Amino acid sequence: MAIKRIGILTSGGDCAGLNSIIRAVYAHAKGHFGWEVIGIHNGTAGLLARPVEATALDERVAGSDMLRQGGTILGTTNKGDPFAFLQEDGSHIDRSGEVIEGFRLLGLDALIGIGGDGSLDILRRLAIQGGFQLVAIPKTIDNDLGATELSIGFETAVQTATSALDHLQPTAASHSRVMVLEVMGRDAGHIALSAGIAGGADVILIPEIRYSFAAIEKKLADLRKGGRNFALVIVAEAVRTENGQSITSVHGGGATAMQTYGGIGHYIGTELAKRSGAETRVTVLGHVQRGGTPEPKDRVLGSAFGVHAVDLIAEGKFDRMVAWNSRRVIDVPIVDAIKGAATVDPHGTLVKTARGLGISFGD
Amino acid sequence: MAIKRIGILTSGGDCAGLNSIIRAVYAHAKGHFGWEVIGIHNGTAGLLARPVEATALDERVAGSDMLRQGGTILGTTNKGDPFAFLQEDGSHIDRSGEVIEGFRLLGLDALIGIGGDGSLDILRRLAIQGGFQLVAIPKTIDNDLGATELSIGFETAVQTATSALDHLQPTAASHSRVMVLEVMGRDAGHIALSAGIAGGADVILIPEIRYSFAAIEKKLADLRKGGRNFALVIVAEAVRTENGQSITSVHGGGATAMQTYGGIGHYIGTELAKRSGAETRVTVLGHVQRGGTPEPKDRVLGSAFGVHAVDLIAEGKFDRMVAWNSRRVIDVPIVDAIKGAATVDPHGTLVKTARGLGISFGD
Amino acid sequence: MAIKRIGILTSGGDCAGLNSIIRAVYAHAKGHFGWEVIGIHNGTAGLLARPVEATALDERVAGSDMLRQGGTILGTTNKGDPFAFLQEDGSHIDRSGEVIEGFRLLGLDALIGIGGDGSLDILRRLAIQGGFQLVAIPKTIDNDLGATELSIGFETAVQTATSALDHLQPTAASHSRVMVLEVMGRDAGHIALSAGIAGGADVILIPEIRYSFAAIEKKLADLRKGGRNFALVIVAEAVRTENGQSITSVHGGGATAMQTYGGIGHYIGTELAKRSGAETRVTVLGHVQRGGTPEPKDRVLGSAFGVHAVDLIAEGKFDRMVAWNSRRVIDVPIVDAIKGAATVDPHGTLVKTARGLGISFGD
Amino acid sequence: MAIKRIGILTSGGDCAGLNSIIRAVYAHAKGHFGWEVIGIHNGTAGLLARPVEATALDERVAGSDMLRQGGTILGTTNKGDPFAFLQEDGSHIDRSGEVIEGFRLLGLDALIGIGGDGSLDILRRLAIQGGFQLVAIPKTIDNDLGATELSIGFETAVQTATSALDHLQPTAASHSRVMVLEVMGRDAGHIALSAGIAGGADVILIPEIRYSFAAIEKKLADLRKGGRNFALVIVAEAVRTENGQSITSVHGGGATAMQTYGGIGHYIGTELAKRSGAETRVTVLGHVQRGGTPEPKDRVLGSAFGVHAVDLIAEGKFDRMVAWNSRRVIDVPIVDAIKGAATVDPHGTLVKTARGLGISFGD
Repeated sequence: MAIKRIGILTSGGDCAGLNSIIRAVYAHAKGHFGWEVIGIHNGTAGLLARPVEATALDERVAGSDMLRQGGTILGTTNKGDPFAFLQEDGSHIDRSGEVIEGFRLLGLDALIGIGGDGSLDILRRLAIQGGFQLVAIPKTIDNDLGATELSIGFETAVQTATSALDHLQPTAASHSRVMVLEVMGRDAGHIALSAGIAGGADVILIPEIRYSFAAIEKKLADLRKGGRNFALVIVAEAVRTENGQSITSVHGGGATAMQTYGGIGHYIGTELAKRSGAETRVTVLGHVQRGGTPEPKDRVLGSAFGVHAVDLIAEGKFDRMVAWNSRRVIDVPIVDAIKGAATVDPHGTLVKTARGLGISFGD
Repeated sequence: MAIKRIGILTSGGDCAGLNSIIRAVYAHAKGHFGWEVIGIHNGTAGLLARPVEATALDERVAGSDMLRQGGTILGTTNKGDPFAFLQEDGSHIDRSGEVIEGFRLLGLDALIGIGGDGSLDILRRLAIQGGFQLVAIPKTIDNDLGATELSIGFETAVQTATSALDHLQPTAASHSRVMVLEVMGRDAGHIALSAGIAGGADVILIPEIRYSFAAIEKKLADLRKGGRNFALVIVAEAVRTENGQSITSVHGGGATAMQTYGGIGHYIGTELAKRSGAETRVTVLGHVQRGGTPEPKDRVLGSAFGVHAVDLIAEGKFDRMVAWNSRRVIDVPIVDAIKGAATVDPHGTLVKTARGLGISFGD
Repeated sequence: MAIKRIGILTSGGDCAGLNSIIRAVYAHAKGHFGWEVIGIHNGTAGLLARPVEATALDERVAGSDMLRQGGTILGTTNKGDPFAFLQEDGSHIDRSGEVIEGFRLLGLDALIGIGGDGSLDILRRLAIQGGFQLVAIPKTIDNDLGATELSIGFETAVQTATSALDHLQPTAASHSRVMVLEVMGRDAGHIALSAGIAGGADVILIPEIRYSFAAIEKKLADLRKGGRNFALVIVAEAVRTENGQSITSVHGGGATAMQTYGGIGHYIGTELAKRSGAETRVTVLGHVQRGGTPEPKDRVLGSAFGVHAVDLIAEGKFDRMVAWNSRRVIDVPIVDAIKGAATVDPHGTLVKTARGLGISFGD
Repeated sequence: MAIKRIGILTSGGDCAGLNSIIRAVYAHAKGHFGWEVIGIHNGTAGLLARPVEATALDERVAGSDMLRQGGTILGTTNKGDPFAFLQEDGSHIDRSGEVIEGFRLLGLDALIGIGGDGSLDILRRLAIQGGFQLVAIPKTIDNDLGATELSIGFETAVQTATSALDHLQPTAASHSRVMVLEVMGRDAGHIALSAGIAGGADVILIPEIRYSFAAIEKKLADLRKGGRNFALVIVAEAVRTENGQSITSVHGGGATAMQTYGGIGHYIGTELAKRSGAETRVTVLGHVQRGGTPEPKDRVLGSAFGVHAVDLIAEGKFDRMVAWNSRRVIDVPIVDAIKGAATVDPHGTLVKTARGLGISFGD
């Protein structure tokens, strides 16, 4: 089938580098192959809307400002699984058929879907059910997709978290404080681990390694004995209470219009203050991790992924996800990418590095 | 009296630019006048300790890394008013005599004290009671000292807060969210006002202007009508609840080892979500506002203040504070600086500017 | 006369903060007064072109991305004085009449002109000759307009130059080198002076203070004696050779399509290497000083200037320039601003500060 | 042999991340194994000096400021191959024996050498001749060591070069100019290629792909036809003139105390201006590429390399270089790393990406 018109959508939490992908897809699809590129708004929500919410992309997305701009100009959503769409009365219904119909209404020959494991799983099921051609691009600041060394957004999130530690260290030292920084990482501790090493954390708490306050306290006491008057603790949001409880159940509540982030950071900080008596302050980095100016790596990666995704469509290779491996772009079956989160290896290079530096994981 | 040895201390919350002052004081006092410079540790706490905690500064503080390093190498504290020193049992006693004795034990001919209005008030009373020579340098990220156009730390705090809005805008737009950013400003809204203008906020809430949720809601509704799918709200920590209650009384608790910041931001966010139904997210910037790499302006200002403070000592002009006025350093009586917070003028240039831009103050 | 439509143009070298002005002018003129705002392209060149090159501004300039974007979306030029327009054959003719006619063709009730002293002088003469209403906004990274404490673009240029010194210091120290950094400053040394202090320069060369290589050499020798293995030298582009010759006459050439910047930096570096034998490297910062992400101060200033300029038009106050003075916007006669460059005061605060820090001016 | 004392030196051009290595080596060697760590000054020059110039490292190198500080606290040199040491009279002599003797005088059980291909080749020959134990760590901003995916310093250099393009784009657009940026890359175009993609360059010139001015001109003409009023050109310093001549031979001269960088950028700029008539400006980024605040990746990589190098010594594995491969640290024979520069693959992922984006290589 000759390709004439393709769609592109971003799905799930936004991050840095998405606009680099959109720019690259347009530049290559339009510039080299002469295809029309339709930007679908707000993930699958744009395909559910009637009229379908989408725009033909034009030269305005070709500018270099797209490289420098965080977020996604297409909009995105991390709500609304169309297979179990949440209705106002709290019940769920299957609206996948409407999404597929939306895709057909746009007259698309193929779709480039950008998302994390959850989004890609949904998009793949839609593609199979709807019989349409899908190419996937991995995006998650958590970098927990196993089939690729890097996902879009991770490097910039690490940069933002590292910069926060860079800011906190001098004020911690000036006031002899323990500073706790909570960073994102819903299923995996990659951001906390990389930023913790890069930003000089003394303690790194990640969901992959079980901690105890006794062990953390020992580390803080060792630092004091060595003459250090402050400490930096970085904690991934997915970390649980000491006895393994999810912090969401501690705080109660659910997914409402207004969610409070930062449960675990405040929990850790409060407990450490109680146990050690040290002046303790907590910072929850939150959404500033998503929207920063993309790091060069995320811009290069986004450009490479976008160009390669277009090439896959041109070659008729579908149901595949582009991936980064040993300094080059490859592609893998989408199904390989959504097998489950690639969490931090507790015996891997970076954990060994951190331990070598004397960083404690609280274990 | 010929000066031979001076002391320097930093007091109150730390901020960017303090090390530039210390560097400049050392360079000028030692390099030009040949005086010895004693760095006192942790504000007046170092003078309370026995032995007194202080170090003779040497060439290591002359390096340019001091310009780039946030915080204060001398340490500081915002606890422990020596005139009403908090004891373990909760009672307060007057330990000012010990502080003055500490000053004498160091054999100092004069003291350079760096602090905000509270610290400078204490230092001045100590100087009068103890009969020692004091020169003051203004420092507060809040920039609410009336006698100087700029205090050390303000420009860097504004830069950090602006950068946070720069990070939040793309993710707000990608997800059609209302983003609330809480920034520092204990008594005044200067940081929120400047960063709000610079970072493109739609709503700025400061303690100097009374807001209502109805007015904020109207602004958000106007934005939606105009086609905007997101909004940025910046709020100073000193802002109260709609009915004028301090948020600390809402949250209960007091000054304990572990303080939770961010009350008002979460309050505003929760209310806005409830009233508008908009997806709302809150970020509390917290301590990252203090320790960033000092902006050039804070480095230049710190250098100018440090040099001028030394000159004042050399000229025998005491009980004076250096200040910035119309592009040059002047000096004013310390007492002029501690008359009360210089809050935002609701009819001043920046409020008019913000209103001209269409920004709402919720009034 | 009731205002209905105003024009805005940027003239002279571009800088950070111009788009903040354009955004503020549009927001206030359109949002508050309901005027139409016409953006004229490429300074007076847009008024010379037929058809006149200009666009009615719309909501797209109201976004916060305008705050973060360097340069000017209107385009600018620093060629083509219409009173002495350079023709292809090298002769000059007076085309001021055509510019004024262009202004009339647009049907404008008033013009906001953004420029430095040269541009404002030209615009003012055009306004007088053409009988149109002009309000001016000061812009020059050199900050050498006397009637205002700050011009748009200066703070960002200082930030970029300071950051360059921050980058150069570690590599200078690692290699025991003398690093020479040439920064902009056509008539005045303000950027070199502020960035030199902020970035820890050892030697600052500015056109306002005559230097000798003997004095510089003495400073470098003193540093070596004190154990320092490196030195940082910052030099303003307007500095001349030791015997007072302009470096352009040394290098020959004139204003051609391709101009080489950096004459004086290389001259200083070459001479220092020759005289001291020290390994010396030269960096010419060039155009990266213009286009950086605007500092918060330039965004706030640009916003304040834009709003106030619109207010001046509304109040019927013309032939005036907005200015920054003691933390607020004022306005002054344009003629006050173009009386000649406000150069660095060799006895002013910042020179005294620099000398207090032990920095040499080579005198 | 039980290890008790190891040495560490940095050699060749400095870059970001070196201090992270030194910190990690000290932390792991001292903290875990209890070894003494001797920091040798200025590469092999410290071993040539008598007394040998070296210092036992202590807790001061364990601070997190080492992560944030560019350059190398040990000092380095890229002069003085000890096998062919340049004497004052211009002749060369073999001083390798003295270097080896210097190593013995320090009583070291093993050496960690940090350098690029040239330095590592020299260190390896010294180790073989002197019979000492060597572990190597790859460092080059050019990233042209084949045996590792990443060398220390590359990511930060790319960040600095990308940031320069980010600065140049708005001023290029404001003035309708062609901006030429010359970046480092002595033997390979990796920096120019990555930064060119990330910063939105229109033309990337690298030594691996032969260009012609005719082809560049065609690209610039195409941009103009498409309505673009500016262009960004990035060029690696190793690029030659159109007819293949090295620019050093064009400029004459040799390695003197004062070297002028930037030949090829000015050559390209001058030629483009001549041929197209477009206003053209050239920026030579120079040494600001070396000393920036290390990117998180360089800090993590440096930490991982340092820890792994110590582990290699502990395991008695010598003559090996640590390397980065597929998200983990491995080690390879040093000899594999110095086989010749790993230049840009003209058919590799990034060149294909760039072409997909419409970027021209001038071919």
